[in-house]
Amino acid sequence: MVETKEKKKTGGLAGIVAGDSSICLCGVEEQSLRYRGYSIENLAEHATFEEVAWLLLRGKLPTKQQLRDYQSHLMKQRDLPKPLKAILEQIPADANMMDVLRTGCSALGTLEPEIAGSDPFKVADRLIACLSSILFYWYLFHTTGKRVDLNTDEMTVAGHILKLLLNKTPIEMHRRCLDVSLILYAEHEFNASTFAVRTIASTLSDFYSAIAGGIGALRGPLHGGANEAAMELIESFSTPDQAEQGVMEMLAKKQLIMGFGHRVYTTSDPRSVIIKELARLLSVQAKDQRLFPVAERIDQVMWREKKLFTNLDFYSALAYHFSGIPTKMFTPLFVFARIAGWSAHLLEQRSNNKLIRPISNYIGPVAQTWLPIEVRE
Amino acid sequence: MVETKEKKKTGGLAGIVAGDSSICLCGVEEQSLRYRGYSIENLAEHATFEEVAWLLLRGKLPTKQQLRDYQSHLMKQRDLPKPLKAILEQIPADANMMDVLRTGCSALGTLEPEIAGSDPFKVADRLIACLSSILFYWYLFHTTGKRVDLNTDEMTVAGHILKLLLNKTPIEMHRRCLDVSLILYAEHEFNASTFAVRTIASTLSDFYSAIAGGIGALRGPLHGGANEAAMELIESFSTPDQAEQGVMEMLAKKQLIMGFGHRVYTTSDPRSVIIKELARLLSVQAKDQRLFPVAERIDQVMWREKKLFTNLDFYSALAYHFSGIPTKMFTPLFVFARIAGWSAHLLEQRSNNKLIRPISNYIGPVAQTWLPIEVRE
Repeated sequence: MVETKEKKKTGGLAGIVAGDSSICLCGVEEQSLRYRGYSIENLAEHATFEEVAWLLLRGKLPTKQQLRDYQSHLMKQRDLPKPLKAILEQIPADANMMDVLRTGCSALGTLEPEIAGSDPFKVADRLIACLSSILFYWYLFHTTGKRVDLNTDEMTVAGHILKLLLNKTPIEMHRRCLDVSLILYAEHEFNASTFAVRTIASTLSDFYSAIAGGIGALRGPLHGGANEAAMELIESFSTPDQAEQGVMEMLAKKQLIMGFGHRVYTTSDPRSVIIKELARLLSVQAKDQRLFPVAERIDQVMWREKKLFTNLDFYSALAYHFSGIPTKMFTPLFVFARIAGWSAHLLEQRSNNKLIRPISNYIGPVAQTWLPIEVRE
Repeated sequence: MVETKEKKKTGGLAGIVAGDSSICLCGVEEQSLRYRGYSIENLAEHATFEEVAWLLLRGKLPTKQQLRDYQSHLMKQRDLPKPLKAILEQIPADANMMDVLRTGCSALGTLEPEIAGSDPFKVADRLIACLSSILFYWYLFHTTGKRVDLNTDEMTVAGHILKLLLNKTPIEMHRRCLDVSLILYAEHEFNASTFAVRTIASTLSDFYSAIAGGIGALRGPLHGGANEAAMELIESFSTPDQAEQGVMEMLAKKQLIMGFGHRVYTTSDPRSVIIKELARLLSVQAKDQRLFPVAERIDQVMWREKKLFTNLDFYSALAYHFSGIPTKMFTPLFVFARIAGWSAHLLEQRSNNKLIRPISNYIGPVAQTWLPIEVRE
């Protein structure tokens, strides 16, 4: 992200250690990213999203039997309680999709509240299984008028999402691409939404409160909205030359160009390399001759002009687009992935909890003398 | 709060400056508390909650005309849109009240979304006016079966709350006591819920997302639940001697006793002095000869044994109780007050925003070699 430097910015806690964690290591050793010690390259190549979710939550890779059981456990938890469906039907058709997810998650917390002392993974697994159902129940109710059956026969979260969205069995390439993307988006240390989750969890509040806070934080354009903005930028150009000219003009006007740079990486984002290759393959499959070349040119210009590299969001946008996913669903997809990381952090926070309560640097007025209302101006 | 020392606690950001703020100064100069420079003693004695909300949000005290206009503006915004009422009716009668508020706030965000570039105070004022309506619409629907009229003739938020709850015009003493309590609870610097609000706002997310996160954080027993726990403790004893014995036993067992101590105050909480006197007056009015003496004895024992002082939550519990408010509504009342402070911080965060994104101290496994699923144990 390119930040304007006009006014001194404070309050970002940049570089401040806010606690111990054993979940994710990023931005050290040649721009690497590891979940529980496993490199993102290995996970993206060999694992499924369910395997990664298990790893993040339980701290180790599942056995074959554990993974099989976990997948069928998740499959059984895709449907939603009737009152939640009734609530989703009351949410307007033109609502922001992140608002729908935040409200659906919050409402589920009133219907299936977390019971103190119950299985700590219970709500995590429920939300991993059903957050996409919340969005698509609402979406399909308003776009097709139908109350869709949320029990698809797809084995994976990625398949479930595509089956609901496209109303047909997805091709394997799209399923796998979305699966890898969910892995890449699943976790990223103390980012703003995860830190919001931990802050809420630190008061010993319930699971749904913390996750609703995470969804709310991810909704902001400085965090989750970047892939949607990247898609809009890429789509706005017809040719690479036009893109180069357009980006140069934006840079001259000091406009923010989304999908570039990252606070914890300095020279490259290891996730971008992986998703770029997938986006390229999908562009070939889609016989695209415009969007991928446009994206690559923007990428080159940004590096040449600003030494800014593409982050995960930039080529993810293209990969989603070629899989038939509407742009306004990109940030919700981020939620369906990051719920794994949020949940792992929430449980870690609880395991060694201390209330997160910093202090502020007071820059306001000194002691003011009380003025009766009659004499105020 | 008394913390167990068994395991090293990390991650609380205690004493860490997380940003500049000109809203609240607390814990310095002989345990004082000031909102925008005005002492809490002056505000509690002379102001109304609406006046304090205006001060927190707009940075200065309102004139007589401004306050009059503000009150009628808030009065007009107490009713809820029909779909929100339908949503509240779907939430179970036995739901946690904070879950109801969090869900109602989130759902309102889908019905009346914040429009970029609109009046920055619009959503703040709407929520100050209608959060209590959300709770009481749901509560009265389930307890009386009625769809209550949310347009009361009470001029103040405090009056509105009591009128809806008690279904009669409240006596002035209860109205004023609740008004003062709302002032005392309105703001407290970078506490956990306010910091959650600022973290969510720092991604440039919308107003409702940030406030829903604040409600979620306040729900936790280490933050908002303390006055409810204090009431349960006080009510569990019949006499001061019994209370002394009970508390001594709890201390011997190292049990947590809620309503005492505070991370930013060391010898006393200036708000406790104010609410204690109100609780005493209400206890006289209620001809109570048990609860106030019991509370005072607990207070004395905690100081004698642990040098821990009562914080705002302890005597607030009694003051609410004597005003006829059920214990499970104490934390929601905190929300109706703190919405003012949260909103002020949210707008301040936006005015000089930087993404809140700390880092973690990694204590997890070093690089792990990938293991194919067939060979895992």
